[in-house]
Amino acid sequence: MLVDGVPYRTIWRDGDGGVAVIDQTRLPHEFVVLRLRDVGAAAHAIRAMLVRGAPLIGATAGWGLALAMHDDPSDGGLDAAASLLGATRPTAVNLHWAIADMRACLAPLPPSRRAAAAAARAAAICDEDVAICAAIGEHGAGLIARAHADAGGGRTVNVLTHCNAGWLATVDWGTALAPIYRAHDSGIPVHVWVDETRPRNQGAALTAWELGRHGVPHTVVADNAGGHLMQHGLVDLCIVGTDRTTSTGDVANKIGTYLKALAAADNGVPFYVALPHPTIDWAIADGVREIPIEQRDAREVTHITGRTAAGETATVRVVPEGSTARNDAFDVTPARLVTALITDRGICPASRDGLLRLFPERRPAA
Amino acid sequence: MLVDGVPYRTIWRDGDGGVAVIDQTRLPHEFVVLRLRDVGAAAHAIRAMLVRGAPLIGATAGWGLALAMHDDPSDGGLDAAASLLGATRPTAVNLHWAIADMRACLAPLPPSRRAAAAAARAAAICDEDVAICAAIGEHGAGLIARAHADAGGGRTVNVLTHCNAGWLATVDWGTALAPIYRAHDSGIPVHVWVDETRPRNQGAALTAWELGRHGVPHTVVADNAGGHLMQHGLVDLCIVGTDRTTSTGDVANKIGTYLKALAAADNGVPFYVALPHPTIDWAIADGVREIPIEQRDAREVTHITGRTAAGETATVRVVPEGSTARNDAFDVTPARLVTALITDRGICPASRDGLLRLFPERRPAA
Repeated sequence: MLVDGVPYRTIWRDGDGGVAVIDQTRLPHEFVVLRLRDVGAAAHAIRAMLVRGAPLIGATAGWGLALAMHDDPSDGGLDAAASLLGATRPTAVNLHWAIADMRACLAPLPPSRRAAAAAARAAAICDEDVAICAAIGEHGAGLIARAHADAGGGRTVNVLTHCNAGWLATVDWGTALAPIYRAHDSGIPVHVWVDETRPRNQGAALTAWELGRHGVPHTVVADNAGGHLMQHGLVDLCIVGTDRTTSTGDVANKIGTYLKALAAADNGVPFYVALPHPTIDWAIADGVREIPIEQRDAREVTHITGRTAAGETATVRVVPEGSTARNDAFDVTPARLVTALITDRGICPASRDGLLRLFPERRPAA
Repeated sequence: MLVDGVPYRTIWRDGDGGVAVIDQTRLPHEFVVLRLRDVGAAAHAIRAMLVRGAPLIGATAGWGLALAMHDDPSDGGLDAAASLLGATRPTAVNLHWAIADMRACLAPLPPSRRAAAAAARAAAICDEDVAICAAIGEHGAGLIARAHADAGGGRTVNVLTHCNAGWLATVDWGTALAPIYRAHDSGIPVHVWVDETRPRNQGAALTAWELGRHGVPHTVVADNAGGHLMQHGLVDLCIVGTDRTTSTGDVANKIGTYLKALAAADNGVPFYVALPHPTIDWAIADGVREIPIEQRDAREVTHITGRTAAGETATVRVVPEGSTARNDAFDVTPARLVTALITDRGICPASRDGLLRLFPERRPAA
């Protein structure tokens, strides 16, 4: 997507063996490109959320292994890099998918060939992600077009989204936002309610920023507001992303997604989850019981960082001294609350049968 | 309640004809007492939310009229003061209840007697509010005691609350927090999940502060977290306040309350609403359609104020320049999602019949 008229992906190979990413902790107030020079830097970028979003985490892990193979292509080097990267974030399945994919590609090769092969495979993972997100956009835009037609074609379609599942969360296009960009680009009038997404404010900071850069009309609301907006007919559909999807269609996404899904169900608003197929964890069936939920630093709740009127970045404490906080990063929305899944292979019910119709190769052998 | 060992109410008559309030916009980082010297100052205190919470808004309106009668006890002075105060906030019914109560007391009197009568009536409104909240605490504490007994008596009872319906929202004790203070004081181990309550952070700033001052264990969570906590059995019951309750048991409370009620219903967690009887609006039956919802300045969403590490108060912008926000202050939770109402007269189902059993004088004549 464009940033000040220049096309960017969120991660790319840099000139001399390094990898470049956008430091998303500096957005929306500063656009800073960071160079990752070794696997430690890549692991840090994932852990400290300089990069975030399940697909981009996977892509960064892929490039992290490529950096590791450049420095130490031995079996030990491969094992150490995979362990280091694998321990950065617990919830996103793409991380482990990308590491496993890279290992399967690299392990059979002699060490001397691993650096080049790793870079090629990491680049391919990125290209595949772009193609996947473009396909999600194509399929999902049809839902927005239908909502527009259902409303008589005369008014703007209002879409609510939570967190950032935009191009910043992927390599390009995004997942939940891909259909919105597609619909907007094709001339369908669309307006996005952007959940602020406390505690890290990815909606207010990232989704609002990228929608604004692309020219998509949007309004930031507190996470508390979505139910009220739906009660008053101000939301035509919800689209969110997911960090891990079970084989039965349960979805783990940013904390608070479950509350919006409940409100959508209570008000008859369609609730869609957009996902690239690598976020499906075919090994598990019960999201609430089986998906590990990352607990992050309480400071993300007790402190907020932003920009002062003087243009400086400042961090302020918002809870009293002596009060503690808890910070679960994700929650699980049961499949029963999901109207449909928007995948790169098409749209399906959020169920085992629905997913298997799109992914028949996953059907257990008879 | 105590502040640094000193007993305070939230509003009291000051030495020489003025009225004192706590500036709640300065909490939790500074405890500042403000003197209101005329009705304009009282109206400003309500409008700018130096004082907030439906019962305290009513009490402040009462004292505002008393200040007005001190300055101009004519019929014109009474009308002007009532109009000024009545236009400050649209949702809390207590505001209009208190103004109507004061007018009914003052209008029949000759102007020369109005100043003294107004001060006496305002003081009585405050004392009545304290008695009401103490009664709510008594009734509601029984629910916490029962939850403690139901869990075998061996563990802490976890209560989730939203916004601030504590003593800071009333004259003393609070509404939703009154049962918690009562249970805690009687030795029942209770822990409170405090919703941050964006955009004004009344939970993080006020509820955490007052619970901390009283020694009640509590943890601040993002507004997004409650559903996840309930899914994992970490909430025994919810208690919230209300700014207006319909004759059928629908409740308007801080934006986001509806989302927690949905999550409670989905997880079999009891969801209680604590209310002093003046918040009941007997004239309306459909909360979603009939209760006007205040829209506040978008800046409350786009900017956050807190305390820097250097101890200074700072305001930071958290959304990109060029992005707008919408700021609905309340939402409506339909009665079907409310387990019971905790009133000063006892506990009842959230329904017309339930309310009429406690308030038989409201039963329409046959």
